Amino acid sequence: MKRIGIVGGTGYTGAELLRLLLAHPEAEVVTITSRAEQGREVAELYPNLRGITSLRFDRPDEAPLADCDLVFFATPNGVAMKQVPGLLAQGVRVIDLAADFRLHDANQWAEWYGQPHHCPELLDFAVYGLPEVNRQLIQEAQLVANPGCYPTAVQLALLPLIKHKLVDLQSLIADTKSGVSGAGRGANVGTLLCETSENFKAYGVAGHRHLPEIVQGLAQAGQVDIQQVALTFVPHLTPMIRGIHATCYGKLSVAGTNLQELFEQHYIHEPFVDVMPASSHPETRSVKGSNLCRIAVHQPLQKDTVVVLSVIDNLVKGAAGQAVQNMNIMLGFPEQLGLQVTAVLP
Amino acid sequence: MKRIGIVGGTGYTGAELLRLLLAHPEAEVVTITSRAEQGREVAELYPNLRGITSLRFDRPDEAPLADCDLVFFATPNGVAMKQVPGLLAQGVRVIDLAADFRLHDANQWAEWYGQPHHCPELLDFAVYGLPEVNRQLIQEAQLVANPGCYPTAVQLALLPLIKHKLVDLQSLIADTKSGVSGAGRGANVGTLLCETSENFKAYGVAGHRHLPEIVQGLAQAGQVDIQQVALTFVPHLTPMIRGIHATCYGKLSVAGTNLQELFEQHYIHEPFVDVMPASSHPETRSVKGSNLCRIAVHQPLQKDTVVVLSVIDNLVKGAAGQAVQNMNIMLGFPEQLGLQVTAVLP
Amino acid sequence: MKRIGIVGGTGYTGAELLRLLLAHPEAEVVTITSRAEQGREVAELYPNLRGITSLRFDRPDEAPLADCDLVFFATPNGVAMKQVPGLLAQGVRVIDLAADFRLHDANQWAEWYGQPHHCPELLDFAVYGLPEVNRQLIQEAQLVANPGCYPTAVQLALLPLIKHKLVDLQSLIADTKSGVSGAGRGANVGTLLCETSENFKAYGVAGHRHLPEIVQGLAQAGQVDIQQVALTFVPHLTPMIRGIHATCYGKLSVAGTNLQELFEQHYIHEPFVDVMPASSHPETRSVKGSNLCRIAVHQPLQKDTVVVLSVIDNLVKGAAGQAVQNMNIMLGFPEQLGLQVTAVLP
Amino acid sequence: MKRIGIVGGTGYTGAELLRLLLAHPEAEVVTITSRAEQGREVAELYPNLRGITSLRFDRPDEAPLADCDLVFFATPNGVAMKQVPGLLAQGVRVIDLAADFRLHDANQWAEWYGQPHHCPELLDFAVYGLPEVNRQLIQEAQLVANPGCYPTAVQLALLPLIKHKLVDLQSLIADTKSGVSGAGRGANVGTLLCETSENFKAYGVAGHRHLPEIVQGLAQAGQVDIQQVALTFVPHLTPMIRGIHATCYGKLSVAGTNLQELFEQHYIHEPFVDVMPASSHPETRSVKGSNLCRIAVHQPLQKDTVVVLSVIDNLVKGAAGQAVQNMNIMLGFPEQLGLQVTAVLP
Repeated sequence: MKRIGIVGGTGYTGAELLRLLLAHPEAEVVTITSRAEQGREVAELYPNLRGITSLRFDRPDEAPLADCDLVFFATPNGVAMKQVPGLLAQGVRVIDLAADFRLHDANQWAEWYGQPHHCPELLDFAVYGLPEVNRQLIQEAQLVANPGCYPTAVQLALLPLIKHKLVDLQSLIADTKSGVSGAGRGANVGTLLCETSENFKAYGVAGHRHLPEIVQGLAQAGQVDIQQVALTFVPHLTPMIRGIHATCYGKLSVAGTNLQELFEQHYIHEPFVDVMPASSHPETRSVKGSNLCRIAVHQPLQKDTVVVLSVIDNLVKGAAGQAVQNMNIMLGFPEQLGLQVTAVLP
Repeated sequence: MKRIGIVGGTGYTGAELLRLLLAHPEAEVVTITSRAEQGREVAELYPNLRGITSLRFDRPDEAPLADCDLVFFATPNGVAMKQVPGLLAQGVRVIDLAADFRLHDANQWAEWYGQPHHCPELLDFAVYGLPEVNRQLIQEAQLVANPGCYPTAVQLALLPLIKHKLVDLQSLIADTKSGVSGAGRGANVGTLLCETSENFKAYGVAGHRHLPEIVQGLAQAGQVDIQQVALTFVPHLTPMIRGIHATCYGKLSVAGTNLQELFEQHYIHEPFVDVMPASSHPETRSVKGSNLCRIAVHQPLQKDTVVVLSVIDNLVKGAAGQAVQNMNIMLGFPEQLGLQVTAVLP
Repeated sequence: MKRIGIVGGTGYTGAELLRLLLAHPEAEVVTITSRAEQGREVAELYPNLRGITSLRFDRPDEAPLADCDLVFFATPNGVAMKQVPGLLAQGVRVIDLAADFRLHDANQWAEWYGQPHHCPELLDFAVYGLPEVNRQLIQEAQLVANPGCYPTAVQLALLPLIKHKLVDLQSLIADTKSGVSGAGRGANVGTLLCETSENFKAYGVAGHRHLPEIVQGLAQAGQVDIQQVALTFVPHLTPMIRGIHATCYGKLSVAGTNLQELFEQHYIHEPFVDVMPASSHPETRSVKGSNLCRIAVHQPLQKDTVVVLSVIDNLVKGAAGQAVQNMNIMLGFPEQLGLQVTAVLP
Repeated sequence: MKRIGIVGGTGYTGAELLRLLLAHPEAEVVTITSRAEQGREVAELYPNLRGITSLRFDRPDEAPLADCDLVFFATPNGVAMKQVPGLLAQGVRVIDLAADFRLHDANQWAEWYGQPHHCPELLDFAVYGLPEVNRQLIQEAQLVANPGCYPTAVQLALLPLIKHKLVDLQSLIADTKSGVSGAGRGANVGTLLCETSENFKAYGVAGHRHLPEIVQGLAQAGQVDIQQVALTFVPHLTPMIRGIHATCYGKLSVAGTNLQELFEQHYIHEPFVDVMPASSHPETRSVKGSNLCRIAVHQPLQKDTVVVLSVIDNLVKGAAGQAVQNMNIMLGFPEQLGLQVTAVLP
């Protein structure tokens, strides 16, 4: 049993991590912290956990994080970068579910996140935790930057095309739709049921923080500079709790490729990517609560625009599940351990 | 008071027409027909209408349609084309809310709708009922083809760009999201609450019937042949009852235009198109139950991709409301008569 | 045109009042106030009102309330009682949509609302604004206490039985279900979509503030002391935006009454109470956005328990609509003026 | 590994059974049948199962049911009673999830289900599968009648009070609320998203088939004749997929009992009944996908009406999960085997 800590346990991501880790046969959560809820039973906030765990939220500064084998940060952006150096120095491995270590460029980070980076020297030390790209590096990583939810869905959709240089990198569009849980458990008017139910809207069209993260990943896959990738990224808020659906578009620069076969081959060994049969339309409910990403590739009317549809659960493959997948890789467990959950449907 | 008939009144479109016409000061609904529900009170199916109307569904073949000034068809595709010629011959004006008269080309109609057209000679006689394009023609029309819901949202979003030849017609993408009412009131497993709630998916990516209708309209606006317009059209099903959100993309072929001003000018005299301020994100709930189309135009990061967001209520501006707007134009009423409804929010 | 003011316009009740009054032919809203949003356009918070009004929120202390013919308070409990005496002194008539003047007994008020009452001398001066009970008194009232949402639904369901002394007053149960908008527009975790969607729960079983209000009304109808009424009141939160469904139970103390006829006769002249046919099940959607209360009375298996089902829109008949109905009565307008809205369905 | 068959696998109950059994370490589903979908992959209907199972629906008359150790019937009412006698004769044990064997009285069955019972001789042979009541009998049972969803929630709420003779059996009320999945996967207009979302209504107030089942169970617990139990049962349809909330009322016939302690003691050894702390309000989401029933007992204002709140997942503890619990008991497995699933929240 490995000793695991969770910093920032009141949000949906932290709670989802806890749910997954409580069912994981090789992980023992020894502490989960919260400044606002310290001393309170986790099951009071998350009634599904009543009877499953008697954990209470620890004060962050009293939590036995240094005694952990691995610590997850499920904190707001900007928190982990202040505490991670200390933990690393004590030999604790870290997975950060926030954005602190996702971008390589400290200036870009400062620009998109509105504050200077606290430890830019770690940006190249951190490994971007998309196992389908960086599995080998993750094994030895001391610090893993867990990808954002949209970046996971969009990169998995576009990587096969870009790796094989099949699309015009100046033509990319990612039209993404997220359930409301992506906005977190904060008390905001904008995510009340009365404001989001029976409603659909775009947001952040002028520029969303996940854009540079996606572009960085796509540029790396295409072995080009980030300036060579032009991605239009439009996120939307959908009246449901969980799920991301990415609809990605690109102009094919090469004709005649069997895209279905290409995608199937690309992901043939991936335990958590399901390339669906030709003509499929993946549904977000089919992955709810599961760590799967389901993908379908289309070439409508055989024209030169390729459409890739991908779905994930934003809190699982888009956050906590992928973090556990990374933990499994880092700690040498089978990659699917504790993650073989089937979506509950309907 | 004009005498109005509704053929096919059990579906959501027919019921919405009835709701609007019951509140219209110059229209009297003299008959609403249904084969399946003949004799039954409309208010039994639509409990909101209890106390508002005592109309019962008439047998189609007994309904006094010939005595009407204007008849709406809210029937499945393929029904109106069989009955309309007879009504026109009796001097009754017709608005068809189905697709029977939307395409000019009978072969194209047959291909997309899977049956030969019954009266191809009427295809050029019918006027496509998008008032923002064809207001003058609608005034004198005997037969109006009311546009589809997606085509309304997408055309209103793209027309200003195309009229002014600002976008590459080969680069168009319409990523559209619809509430479930767009699928009608039929008893289908696919539209059960348990199959659609907490779920998001695309459908019809290989080709949707609204595609040729949109392309026809865009080509006409751009004064080009339909072959010169390449539109990728991907509709999605959203877990809500009403509303369409179209997210439209195009490559600008001309730089430097003030798109905000262009859109505002283009629609400055339109009573039912609201161009929102720069940086806006229109919400479907803001038009629920209303005949408005709200539009916002964006140029993310000042690059050469333009993003136009438009929202309508699929059953109002996307169907029954636009039909009443057309009726107002045809019968010489003020265009907004009976249509000045504010969306109920939250 | 009467000059109308709204104090506290950012909440759902204030916004609903504004929506109704903007469509009212005899009312002109001259001011709507908000401390938090002063200076901001109302349509920014309520995008459905864009193009309908250009009102901005006024600072409460600068608003021309004294120049109004009638002022509505849509403020949190405890606010109106501090400002109403001054307005009354200036001859302004007031309708309070909060609970400040609903209870006659200042001690009871203090007990349930956790603070002493600021002007107990007004408690008997205020008229309880349930038109179906107090229409005559409302006509001349200077201060009307608009009923709570649950109290409206429950009283309208039970009054006919109690007036005719048909039920055991010690046996009453009101099992009520409300949409989430009843909890207001405050930024609370408990009313986030992610906390309330796909969920159903009771709350406040130990005692809800609407209980004494209902008991007071029922006791008055039965001409008994409030101690003689024992009502068990259990509210529940339902995953929808609008609507209250009250399921009320009582033991019949007299056998053989035709309850259907009794209810129909009792409400025969009421414009906003619809007694449905025997065996009906009223639906909340049938009154969404409308001021109607629909009621059905059942006597299952002909036993001695009567079940009365009633539905209202909590923001209309349960708040703003009833307030406008009261305004109409106070100002001598036809009672239905501006309130003849049909629910939008689906 | 035991060989398991499922008859009637296209409905939500059958699919939920399959989901649970696929994760069960001692069960192997050897056949799942469907007349309508024979030959089709189960994962086409239930996309969550894609990659988890390659089972296809078998023709009912070709399925190897006789080779099974145990067969579940997840068929419409009236189907199992025709096939069960044959299977029992071949030594196959059966759990029927429909209502065929729930009532002991064939006349009562015929009256409520509208057809004569096909094998009334089995009604006393069948064991009513509520483990919290009949665990011992279930162990040896050849035929188990799995309880209905409402009967499970209501009986678990009321049994402690009735066993201890604390309530007036003539005063019982069960006001129950169910998600839409309780109505099944049939193609009905009444369960479309557009008809049920943003809506709340009662149904079947005049008499619902689960009423005699509940009364039978309560009478047995109270050791009285069914005529001595008067239960008013009012079910409601709630706009969500899964979950039942029962709000049960009774007049206490004995004062002074510590009800909290009574409930805790009554269920202290039950693995799937969670008596919550005093003043709790159980939420349906806390048991979604899980086999738990969570219960809270209240005595509002210390008066003589007791209120018991209970929640279950209608498809799990209300159907498939309870069936697996019964299977575990019958086959000698640990009762919780394969059922230790935590609800996914949010």
